[in-house]
Amino acid sequence: MAVLLVAHATFPEVWRNAFTEAFRDEGLFIWPDIANLHDVDCVIVARSEPGVLAKLPNLKLISSTGMGVDHILGLADLPPQVPLARVVTAEMIDQVAEYVTLAVLRVERDDDHFDRLQVERKWQRRMTRRTGGKLRVGLLGWGVIAREIARRLSFLGFPVAAWARSGRTDGPIVVHAGTDGLHRMLTASNILVNALPGTEATRDLLDAENLGRLPPGAHVINVGRGEHLVDTSLIDLLDRGHLAGATLDVFRTEPLPQDHPFWLHPKVRVTPHSAGMLTPRDSAAAILDNLRRVRAGQPPRHRVDITLGY
Amino acid sequence: MAVLLVAHATFPEVWRNAFTEAFRDEGLFIWPDIANLHDVDCVIVARSEPGVLAKLPNLKLISSTGMGVDHILGLADLPPQVPLARVVTAEMIDQVAEYVTLAVLRVERDDDHFDRLQVERKWQRRMTRRTGGKLRVGLLGWGVIAREIARRLSFLGFPVAAWARSGRTDGPIVVHAGTDGLHRMLTASNILVNALPGTEATRDLLDAENLGRLPPGAHVINVGRGEHLVDTSLIDLLDRGHLAGATLDVFRTEPLPQDHPFWLHPKVRVTPHSAGMLTPRDSAAAILDNLRRVRAGQPPRHRVDITLGY
Repeated sequence: MAVLLVAHATFPEVWRNAFTEAFRDEGLFIWPDIANLHDVDCVIVARSEPGVLAKLPNLKLISSTGMGVDHILGLADLPPQVPLARVVTAEMIDQVAEYVTLAVLRVERDDDHFDRLQVERKWQRRMTRRTGGKLRVGLLGWGVIAREIARRLSFLGFPVAAWARSGRTDGPIVVHAGTDGLHRMLTASNILVNALPGTEATRDLLDAENLGRLPPGAHVINVGRGEHLVDTSLIDLLDRGHLAGATLDVFRTEPLPQDHPFWLHPKVRVTPHSAGMLTPRDSAAAILDNLRRVRAGQPPRHRVDITLGY
Repeated sequence: MAVLLVAHATFPEVWRNAFTEAFRDEGLFIWPDIANLHDVDCVIVARSEPGVLAKLPNLKLISSTGMGVDHILGLADLPPQVPLARVVTAEMIDQVAEYVTLAVLRVERDDDHFDRLQVERKWQRRMTRRTGGKLRVGLLGWGVIAREIARRLSFLGFPVAAWARSGRTDGPIVVHAGTDGLHRMLTASNILVNALPGTEATRDLLDAENLGRLPPGAHVINVGRGEHLVDTSLIDLLDRGHLAGATLDVFRTEPLPQDHPFWLHPKVRVTPHSAGMLTPRDSAAAILDNLRRVRAGQPPRHRVDITLGY
């Protein structure tokens, strides 16, 4: 049995070393340096490389190195019967939920306003409390990260609703579904948090029409995928004053191009895809754990439904 | 029976109206416009006015209009046998705990760093995770606000310890006491949150010596009283690089004077005593509720121990 890592030449040394170390006992090969393709029962796909999967007849597990599997789902030779898994760690969930919590609190407390007061040395006491209670948060997605975001914001007293492929009620949270459910949630959300996985079905979901359904003064937080958001529509709604602000960690092109208007827009906060980052060691450990599970006949954790794309 | 409000001429109209409205049925008089001092069973002290209390022989309740009672404890004619109460509302506790949670998350995630990256349009991905876990929070105080801060930060995964007049273990939180306990907590706190009430015993507690006990790179958050902090010592430790930053909502002189170095210090965040603010209506309602309690022979809520000062 052997493990094959498919990575570009630019795969960082620190990641390469972490995988070599973690899979020392398993026999790790790095594409294309491999002796016997028949021995490979686990392939770790860091970057798209068409044609490799078709050459591996004895696969038990295909794994991404992180949350995203978009680069794997696009492969024409993806064998549908082999489990495909993403890597999700408690640490990663914690980081992203923390990022969103911070962004929500900054909006709720109008934190930028106090920053401006300080620059001008203005002492203007101001109640951050609103009549009608805290801002209402609408969450796109109901995966492990979205659920943790909801758990934290609910604890902190925010009214939270969610939207996902299938509707349900999960504890105190109503999860809407369908187009009507989406519209219902959008019109009631002062803060919209996108935590959807990247799929074709949800590409461009945050367009002029849907963003326009948010109430005046709403704020958008994106920790899903850049492809969910139509950049020009967001900027237009910010500039026309319908939306008050946006906090964006993911973008259609990363790194975000130097001339992209998001960088210097006064109502947009940009962070460089850093809401949650896996360590190489955690990623390798999670994949090794999953490999041991499938070798023991158990299902892998965080398996992706390849027809749904997440 | 009658209620007497002692307030300066500068007492804001919106507060005056809220009290007039709430105490319509009780007979509210505003000092010095009062017919019969013998009728007064409740005095609401918005501002120090020596000599008034001694003129009220039938008092059942002395109330502040907010959290602070410093201005009442300093009155020479404060009758020790009459219950003195502060005003604390769930809304107020929520606001201050939220302010501190936001400040802690800003430090934990090095949020200012990402603000600077954006200004320079720099795409530098950066893991906010630290080896050794989240920053350790030390809380000065264990009143209703401190406990709510601890509850939230614990839920969000921060290790929290506290320090108060008497030690105990409260759920997962160790509350230290005494000088040794203070030193022990300070040396272990990456973020120090001051939520102590204003008393003579704790004045200047945050001096060069105690602030110097914090580990290198620590951050100070003050929502207690300006008098707890020796401003020059904080600035010196920030300038020498021992401390990394401070988030301050309360000051020795308020409004913070225009020439105070806190305003433009790059490592200090100033907010204008806005972490938590009572609405006039909530304050009046809480005092009315307390008055009804004492008239019915019950103890008032949030009674102050005048020998301890809180």
